[in-house]
Amino acid sequence: MRTIQRLDSDDAQLLIEGAAAEADSMGVPMCIAITDEGGNLLAFKRMDGGKVTSITIAIDKSFTASGAQKATHEYGEASQPGAPAYGIFAGIGGRLMVVGGGLPVKVDGAVVGGIGISSGTPAQDRQCAEAGIKHLMEKKGYSE
Amino acid sequence: MRTIQRLDSDDAQLLIEGAAAEADSMGVPMCIAITDEGGNLLAFKRMDGGKVTSITIAIDKSFTASGAQKATHEYGEASQPGAPAYGIFAGIGGRLMVVGGGLPVKVDGAVVGGIGISSGTPAQDRQCAEAGIKHLMEKKGYSE
Amino acid sequence: MRTIQRLDSDDAQLLIEGAAAEADSMGVPMCIAITDEGGNLLAFKRMDGGKVTSITIAIDKSFTASGAQKATHEYGEASQPGAPAYGIFAGIGGRLMVVGGGLPVKVDGAVVGGIGISSGTPAQDRQCAEAGIKHLMEKKGYSE
Amino acid sequence: MRTIQRLDSDDAQLLIEGAAAEADSMGVPMCIAITDEGGNLLAFKRMDGGKVTSITIAIDKSFTASGAQKATHEYGEASQPGAPAYGIFAGIGGRLMVVGGGLPVKVDGAVVGGIGISSGTPAQDRQCAEAGIKHLMEKKGYSE
Repeated sequence: MRTIQRLDSDDAQLLIEGAAAEADSMGVPMCIAITDEGGNLLAFKRMDGGKVTSITIAIDKSFTASGAQKATHEYGEASQPGAPAYGIFAGIGGRLMVVGGGLPVKVDGAVVGGIGISSGTPAQDRQCAEAGIKHLMEKKGYSE
Repeated sequence: MRTIQRLDSDDAQLLIEGAAAEADSMGVPMCIAITDEGGNLLAFKRMDGGKVTSITIAIDKSFTASGAQKATHEYGEASQPGAPAYGIFAGIGGRLMVVGGGLPVKVDGAVVGGIGISSGTPAQDRQCAEAGIKHLMEKKGYSE
Repeated sequence: MRTIQRLDSDDAQLLIEGAAAEADSMGVPMCIAITDEGGNLLAFKRMDGGKVTSITIAIDKSFTASGAQKATHEYGEASQPGAPAYGIFAGIGGRLMVVGGGLPVKVDGAVVGGIGISSGTPAQDRQCAEAGIKHLMEKKGYSE
Repeated sequence: MRTIQRLDSDDAQLLIEGAAAEADSMGVPMCIAITDEGGNLLAFKRMDGGKVTSITIAIDKSFTASGAQKATHEYGEASQPGAPAYGIFAGIGGRLMVVGGGLPVKVDGAVVGGIGISSGTPAQDRQCAEAGIKHLMEKKGYSE
């Protein structure tokens, strides 16, 4: 039998809260998705003005980050032409996202979920994902 | 050009809040999805214990209710064997939900979005959807 | 080699025109889709107020009617529990529509395309589809 | 509650009319799709000779441009190997189009819909999309 640590609904809300505050401060309304460690959606928020196409992209960034236990921008590097994971962006019906903005959420060394952001540039998306994680860690006293 | 009224992110949060309170009081953790009047996801919450299969079902109930401007349980009746909409449950790649728990959200006579609930019985799901709408209406002073 | 008769873009426009006029006269804004005899979309119109969920349903009704050379309501009867085509509504990823409102367009004994309508009751949808075909036949002097 | 401006069915027809006139003048029959600001199809026309594969591509170009509020050719640049959005073309089940020919339609500073063209070269497709928008703006007296 295995014991799994997993984000709860309250953690998910804090991740969204932190990411949305960062998005507000940069003036870019975002789509923010939180998945559990199984890649399944826990919470989602489209801020007013967040892009329609970003709904699925944010969910899939979070799915990828939690499921693969890897930041999506790392896949971006690994999937360049000539690199080992080239073409993987078409995997899982296109759900495998290699664009920055998806991060695994780690607590005590284990991936307990993911956060995916979309509507800004990949760098802005990633910055908001990081802010979400920082907010959760501080509010709950978790450590990586 | 048409002028459309649409739920904003704050409205979506109130819908979730009301539905989750009802779910808590009945002791059934739910998946709760809110879409805008175009059927696009605005907000989602899986309460702790909400079913994994209910994620998509809740989202699609809300999509159906807002997009078709009709409660999903009405489709349930209309799609029984021998009834006029029989078979429609397979439509839109299976996204057209005919199981109760999806309701359109109406303000001043217009459908401005939808709410979809899943994890309980269809009757419980519908009751939570109604509670979400009631909560929004009271908090914001909206009327149908 | 085979010679195929097929609706052209002008025919498609007339089908839409006739169906939309009927929809206007019954006060139900419709989604109207026209496909060629290969099931491929030729033209589409969502009238103001036509349902979002009806976009795909109208297209798939037309696809089914032209591709199967059969009215969708005939499939409705044939796919009832116990009937020979039971369950076929789930076919082709749910594109095989068995709800009324899709009709093949026949000219000189050959199916040259299809028309699919959605947003009203199946009976209203079918009535608009029939009106579209009648309009085309009259304007162009075609006969079945 | 939010108030949104959206293309109506008449606007959609003018967009198609302008794009089709341009396509005629360059001798390239096109598939022309119009979506509302939520990415949902409003109108579609396949000119006689328009490509079958271009049906979905035109619809998805329009979906992308309206949903992401960005021209598809901008994604083309941003998704080159080594660029930040590399791999995004596989997103949303492959619906995220990065090939030129999709443009958002802006009126009074807001994206009110999109136009997507396919069957020619990306440059030709884009030229027709621009012609469609120009035609709408002039006929209705709208300004960006």
